[in-house]
Amino acid sequence: MANCIIAQSGGPTSVINSSVVGLVEANHNLNAFDTVYGGLHGIEGILNKKFINLSDVSQSKLDIFKYTPSSGLGSCRYKLKSHTESLEEYEKLMEIFKELDIKAFFYVGGNDSMDTISKLSAYGKEYNIDIKFIGIPKTIDNDLMYTDHTPGFGSAAKFISTTVLETNYDASVYMNNGIFILETMGRDTGWLAASAALAKENGSSAADFIYLPEKPFVVGKFLEDVNTRFKEKNRVYVVASEGLINEQGDFLAQINPLGLHDNFGHAQLGGVGNYLKSTIVDAGITTRVKALELGILQRCSMHSASDLDIDEAYQVGYDALKYALEGLTGMMVAIKRESNTPYEYSTFPIETTKVANKVKYFPSEWINEAGNHVTEKALDYLNPLISGNPSLHFENSLPKYKAFNK
Amino acid sequence: MANCIIAQSGGPTSVINSSVVGLVEANHNLNAFDTVYGGLHGIEGILNKKFINLSDVSQSKLDIFKYTPSSGLGSCRYKLKSHTESLEEYEKLMEIFKELDIKAFFYVGGNDSMDTISKLSAYGKEYNIDIKFIGIPKTIDNDLMYTDHTPGFGSAAKFISTTVLETNYDASVYMNNGIFILETMGRDTGWLAASAALAKENGSSAADFIYLPEKPFVVGKFLEDVNTRFKEKNRVYVVASEGLINEQGDFLAQINPLGLHDNFGHAQLGGVGNYLKSTIVDAGITTRVKALELGILQRCSMHSASDLDIDEAYQVGYDALKYALEGLTGMMVAIKRESNTPYEYSTFPIETTKVANKVKYFPSEWINEAGNHVTEKALDYLNPLISGNPSLHFENSLPKYKAFNK
Repeated sequence: MANCIIAQSGGPTSVINSSVVGLVEANHNLNAFDTVYGGLHGIEGILNKKFINLSDVSQSKLDIFKYTPSSGLGSCRYKLKSHTESLEEYEKLMEIFKELDIKAFFYVGGNDSMDTISKLSAYGKEYNIDIKFIGIPKTIDNDLMYTDHTPGFGSAAKFISTTVLETNYDASVYMNNGIFILETMGRDTGWLAASAALAKENGSSAADFIYLPEKPFVVGKFLEDVNTRFKEKNRVYVVASEGLINEQGDFLAQINPLGLHDNFGHAQLGGVGNYLKSTIVDAGITTRVKALELGILQRCSMHSASDLDIDEAYQVGYDALKYALEGLTGMMVAIKRESNTPYEYSTFPIETTKVANKVKYFPSEWINEAGNHVTEKALDYLNPLISGNPSLHFENSLPKYKAFNK
Repeated sequence: MANCIIAQSGGPTSVINSSVVGLVEANHNLNAFDTVYGGLHGIEGILNKKFINLSDVSQSKLDIFKYTPSSGLGSCRYKLKSHTESLEEYEKLMEIFKELDIKAFFYVGGNDSMDTISKLSAYGKEYNIDIKFIGIPKTIDNDLMYTDHTPGFGSAAKFISTTVLETNYDASVYMNNGIFILETMGRDTGWLAASAALAKENGSSAADFIYLPEKPFVVGKFLEDVNTRFKEKNRVYVVASEGLINEQGDFLAQINPLGLHDNFGHAQLGGVGNYLKSTIVDAGITTRVKALELGILQRCSMHSASDLDIDEAYQVGYDALKYALEGLTGMMVAIKRESNTPYEYSTFPIETTKVANKVKYFPSEWINEAGNHVTEKALDYLNPLISGNPSLHFENSLPKYKAFNK
């Protein structure tokens, strides 16, 4: 037998460690490799010979690690050049892998990480290297091609929809309320913003309007939406994706509506929420406008995770090991939705070249005609992904977590 | 028999509805009043004859209402003038109370609401009105005098400490991390910021520094704290209260560090987090600085509430009714900590005149000598208050809530 190594890359999610535990337990059950190493801080750390022995970690620690949010092996944002451009890093990495007797490398990440896997497996094939390179998907953005959805998304969607539900109560307690704007992550895709639609009040969407980057944002139309609804019900709840783009193709977050600048004359960016807020105030609709940016809470709120998401993250890690044993390389483990009610899924391998550096956008047919909300079909897709509450470990009434990168 | 009415006022908390349910159930158990009315939107709504019959609400709805965050009867920020200044509102209110045959009025709120109770009971005594006026404490700020703590605080403290725990993992995944700043509410008191100290990583505080308004904030000292720690461990986690005040007595949130102004020349306020962020960047420590403002999440995240807090909120509502039956008026139900390990408490009545318009600050002896963290005594005080996870009702994997103000 020989050894394998797993590492994490890119932005954290709540469930990324569950994939690591899935792989370690697959290795135990299938008796595949002698040792599973954990590379710390992705490729960047491995190149600096930073790794731990995950096979030595006790089951009780693994149980806690499975329910620990954020990249517990550390992460990096390290772009590998192709080996035809620069061989040096590849040779250094292979030397380190040789020292550790590595026969399989697993990388948990998003489109950039799948690019890394593509490049490594292309190099491996060309140089006849006996190492399998397998990608394990993760991103809260849900923007990977071919997979039905990405581990990490369901938990972020659950935190966002729970937050919309709760803040909507807070934003409506007075006789005269205002306009509340929630800004979600998601880069240039609307999956996370769309998940706000899961929050219902008396059967209707708690969010009055949800704006996604997949539909050009028209300020005049937005003000009309908000103004009409504000007159109707004396309050408006708006969800806006950080990646909203106007008709000219500019990111709203990069527009400086008030010409804000510091003493050195540098423009100050305020985010989409603040942009929309000042737009509403400037239009004279009301001065009672609050904007809240959820920020990194979306990707680390394990206390509000989806149990299904944790299970699926575990399974793609588990199956990654199986695919490597089957001799696959240059593949990512993808999720297929077998049925929606009851929800059932399976995994399948997909070439990382097909996933790398590509983006899966929110389907335009799931955006309503007015371009300010999502359809029932979107809800059918989203609903199962937030299922179940995780059985966290607690210590002094707070969740008990364990990371290895410190 | 006759009737009573309960209403809510001021900023919401996660557990404010539990007090209403406590009172309704006390009335049922003690067979006290025929009907418990719920005044909608506090005094302001009652003056507009907005109320519902809470005694008619089914037990199953009450059970859900108990676990619903935010003022489910609606709220107001309505300052009653004293009756010696203006009798009109008092007479209008008494007329409405007479129509409803009200013999007790309960107001769930903070120092302003206790001022309302003081004024009403002073009026009641002078004009021989046969109505008992009782205050029920609530505020996430924990700034009410005499009571050991306020219902609402424990849940906010639990959300804040859970968030510190989780975001601290997120803020430390890279080989080169930055400085993370979390801004909490709390107005000019540090209770909420201090609760961040409950989050521990390997036995030590996850937050490197916690700055409270009770200690004048010295920019030079802050930069030294942050710079030293950043050099030591390559990342720093800072918690800052929104109410921080510098040595000149100015609120940091009102200082405009970059001279930010809009095209009309109006200064733009950025909050304490953004002020500290630009201060760190300007000092050249690092450009990797993130500031996150928790905003209203702190006061409505029932999904992460303290079960003890929900119980205590229920109990102060329950006991408010008992005190009214005993003939008390102009009193607030306060909490006494009977023992810390195991935690035990009781309630007692305190004159609202002693509570109204006063502020309980975080004890200076619980702030460490360096003025950048809290002591073990503070932790002993805080620890029991976040105990237990509530048994929320769920529907489609999201918490199920019910409010009456819509």
